[in-house]
Amino acid sequence: MPGFVLDERLAADTIALGDARLSRLLLMNDRRFPWLILVPRRANAVELFDLASEERALLVEEIAQVSKKLSQRVGVEKINVAALGNMVRQLHVHVIGRAKHDAAWPGPVWGAGARQPYEAADAQRLSDELAEAMAHILVD
Amino acid sequence: MPGFVLDERLAADTIALGDARLSRLLLMNDRRFPWLILVPRRANAVELFDLASEERALLVEEIAQVSKKLSQRVGVEKINVAALGNMVRQLHVHVIGRAKHDAAWPGPVWGAGARQPYEAADAQRLSDELAEAMAHILVD
Repeated sequence: MPGFVLDERLAADTIALGDARLSRLLLMNDRRFPWLILVPRRANAVELFDLASEERALLVEEIAQVSKKLSQRVGVEKINVAALGNMVRQLHVHVIGRAKHDAAWPGPVWGAGARQPYEAADAQRLSDELAEAMAHILVD
Repeated sequence: MPGFVLDERLAADTIALGDARLSRLLLMNDRRFPWLILVPRRANAVELFDLASEERALLVEEIAQVSKKLSQRVGVEKINVAALGNMVRQLHVHVIGRAKHDAAWPGPVWGAGARQPYEAADAQRLSDELAEAMAHILVD
């Protein structure tokens, strides 16, 4: 994807799982929530309307696939999907598994307390597990 | 759309602008933000993966069209898009125009203080104006 560079803050806060056809798939390094982020690999995209129509259709399919997989995890009761971009302008879509006993329920996760990074071994185990669960959409 | 009934809480908090091909378009009755909600007119849809693939493609186009129109309003600097559903399970998508001086920036709008309803005349004027701006996607 010519010119695409992952935003530095997104890179710092996440663990890369691989690339789907359109998006880079990231795991947010916050053990309070099963929280994935899709970043369309298109330079300078900020809003959904910066993508071509076919890219949007692909993005929403990638979101749906990731949502479905997250929803099948033990304890996940609802999926939250959001593209906000108030802090990081590069277009990115949060897909978060929520539960009624989690640290922010029923509020949104953004701004709800501080991120709690995974222990290194847990991060490795979970990212391997998620990359395997998402293998059908990963091209790289 | 057989069996589709708008959730009572969504109905109570919003003003209906009309129906696009897939979604009912609502204006959130909160004068703090230009805030629209799209509700796919499909009975029992909760998550994005409850829609058919063609419906998702239509939904993301409707979101993009509404986002684009909101982004052209004076003062709007960023669009926030989200499908959360922690409070109201019926699938609905928020499309919100945000600005650096607004009541919640840079945080999300949900849970940030109390909704401030429009004065009746303002509600009428704004809903007319938005319905006209969105007329190209409204079928009803």
